[in-house]
Amino acid sequence: MRRRNPALQVSKRASLTPPSPIRKLVPLADRAKSQGAKIFYLNIGQPDIKSPPEFLKAVREFRHPVVAYENSQGNPLLREELVKYYKRNGISLKSKEIIVTTGGSEAILFALMAVCDPGDQCLIPEPCYANYMGFASMAGVTLVPIPTDPKNGFHLPDMHVWEKARTEKTRALVVVNPNNPTGTVYDKRELAMLDQFARSHKLFVISDETYREMVYDGAVHHSFLNFGSPSQHVILVDSLSKRYSLCGARIGCLVAHNKSVLESVTKFCQARLAAPTIEQEAAIAAVKSPKRDIEKIRSEFMKRRDTVISSLQNIPGVFVRKPEGAFYCVAKLPVNDAEAFSSWLLTDFRDRGQTLMLAPANGFYLTQNGGLDEVRIAYVLKSEDLKRSMTLLKTALADYPKKSTASL
Amino acid sequence: MRRRNPALQVSKRASLTPPSPIRKLVPLADRAKSQGAKIFYLNIGQPDIKSPPEFLKAVREFRHPVVAYENSQGNPLLREELVKYYKRNGISLKSKEIIVTTGGSEAILFALMAVCDPGDQCLIPEPCYANYMGFASMAGVTLVPIPTDPKNGFHLPDMHVWEKARTEKTRALVVVNPNNPTGTVYDKRELAMLDQFARSHKLFVISDETYREMVYDGAVHHSFLNFGSPSQHVILVDSLSKRYSLCGARIGCLVAHNKSVLESVTKFCQARLAAPTIEQEAAIAAVKSPKRDIEKIRSEFMKRRDTVISSLQNIPGVFVRKPEGAFYCVAKLPVNDAEAFSSWLLTDFRDRGQTLMLAPANGFYLTQNGGLDEVRIAYVLKSEDLKRSMTLLKTALADYPKKSTASL
Repeated sequence: MRRRNPALQVSKRASLTPPSPIRKLVPLADRAKSQGAKIFYLNIGQPDIKSPPEFLKAVREFRHPVVAYENSQGNPLLREELVKYYKRNGISLKSKEIIVTTGGSEAILFALMAVCDPGDQCLIPEPCYANYMGFASMAGVTLVPIPTDPKNGFHLPDMHVWEKARTEKTRALVVVNPNNPTGTVYDKRELAMLDQFARSHKLFVISDETYREMVYDGAVHHSFLNFGSPSQHVILVDSLSKRYSLCGARIGCLVAHNKSVLESVTKFCQARLAAPTIEQEAAIAAVKSPKRDIEKIRSEFMKRRDTVISSLQNIPGVFVRKPEGAFYCVAKLPVNDAEAFSSWLLTDFRDRGQTLMLAPANGFYLTQNGGLDEVRIAYVLKSEDLKRSMTLLKTALADYPKKSTASL
Repeated sequence: MRRRNPALQVSKRASLTPPSPIRKLVPLADRAKSQGAKIFYLNIGQPDIKSPPEFLKAVREFRHPVVAYENSQGNPLLREELVKYYKRNGISLKSKEIIVTTGGSEAILFALMAVCDPGDQCLIPEPCYANYMGFASMAGVTLVPIPTDPKNGFHLPDMHVWEKARTEKTRALVVVNPNNPTGTVYDKRELAMLDQFARSHKLFVISDETYREMVYDGAVHHSFLNFGSPSQHVILVDSLSKRYSLCGARIGCLVAHNKSVLESVTKFCQARLAAPTIEQEAAIAAVKSPKRDIEKIRSEFMKRRDTVISSLQNIPGVFVRKPEGAFYCVAKLPVNDAEAFSSWLLTDFRDRGQTLMLAPANGFYLTQNGGLDEVRIAYVLKSEDLKRSMTLLKTALADYPKKSTASL
């Protein structure tokens, strides 16, 4: 199995780690920008919504003369505030069950490492959030895709599909709910099915609920921590990034009732010393901030979703279903290769000096050639910009075959 | 090799990850503190020196309305400032060869993952910085200890010792210089020997130079990046934490000339999205700050070292050699079990309501029962506090055998 001459070569896991489909076209975008193009960035889940004023105020008022290490498991006051936050959202926790991480990213990596050894497997619905692929490579874990169907809004297949995918090496299911990249919100029946499946085979569930509050049309989000008791098998992965528009603050958390999981993650946390001090202190103020801010953000995103979906559904050859949550959708385009099209948008297409950046969806598939004609669209810009982006997309798709053929 | 019943158990790597010897006694310290004891913390490399005013000013002046993701490889201006910093320190780099990480910690983890697959080995002088053990467990990498001798100040053994430890699975050497926990600064001859060894077997060198500027008595620090050209085998791990007294900012970097290594680490960086935005912006101001600050810090630490070492050498039964750099020393105490003694300091010993916290050195050894009678002392407090700490240590050691026997 080992390479014949591994000397001074990077590791197999490094070679196998995929580049981010969200960020791999950035060099093309940078070039377009330097040439004076105006780009609408729909590739990345970076909302343009302002960060909470309470957070920014706390940053400006940071008065400690020494920026010292925080506790490895997180600022105790922040953990207390998170207990209250979860309580408001119907989840009952003790502060020692919450470990603050450097973004939801670190929580994902630590969760995978806590329950999987190299060679172990996790089941994950496909398409899946691409960064899980990066973390799985880093941790030596194999993600096994569970196919979902765009036609029924990427909802989960029946238990027999999961049963069939399970092997002796399966240690956990990964469920991102609301989903990134599809925007699907799983209903109670789907989650109960997964919970039963996990319990019957004694599998962990890594439940990524970053987009918990981003559910629309009156839908209710069900946390995996609330499916019966005891929930020794559930590891919650969470983040303040999207909910509070604090992507750059890198504050997330990992939540579990399972003591062995908490002890394991604590040891990982000790190795990396601590999450950033200033943001943790400022995050206390953000988490304390009144709930109505979240509702304002939710209704803003719902408006944006409606703008994007109705525009997309009016473009000939595009297929997309209205997603129930998060701020993403996966749309099928009338092109053979959505990555070539997304690159061409940045290198060749301009309309009044403007273009847009998309994330080719193939990078969200574990299955080779999956989603080749799909893109992920993050509806994170204000409606006016989204409207213009959709007009640009429509124009570009109408232009694309001609230009593409012409350049042959 | 697999456990018979892995269901709902944490991973083997999680079980095998050691708790931090620096932080494992924290619960005892917290209890002592809550009982009103004044504790001198010599267990952790958290200097009491003020963070740069330029950094704190930049934090207070953070004016962006959205705390957005930074580039995955780091803030471009910070990378430019780091190029200038390295140039001032005799290391010539391009900005694309510097990747900003969330503390030196993340740089260590990414370096190990970039060059090692699970099951691969790295050679490391022992005692070694304990957190390497945590990261190695997480990455599934085996650290193979190269023994060093307190009698000659923990300097490196000859090449035949390294040759003997090398196997088919060895992928890299890890060198922390100046060393944590020993304070040893390796001289040019030692480093040239390692460089020759690494080149002849095509091994990577992970060179942790976090304490680069903390060298005393006019000693010169030699960076591994400056040992001949090309340095395709060298990965530099670095941090602003100690140099700028910014431990809680979590800003470090990984430096390499090797393009494949940079590409691999970039993919890991993309998976975790970005290092914290606010600290990166503020770090620009810190790195720009005039060099003399570093010299002031260096002379302060040299004074502290002299205070601690001369006090230690005057305690009966204690053995320690004067270290050449960093702000740590490993001292042999006249006790059988330094961890029991360190715990007893927190649970039982008080002198005028005061006690001190040490890091038992066994946790810095890969070899079972290594360093059982040793502690790591971080001389990070002001001289007055260090003097008092050393008096407390002397008193405690004189008291300890009696009390310890009495409690049997």
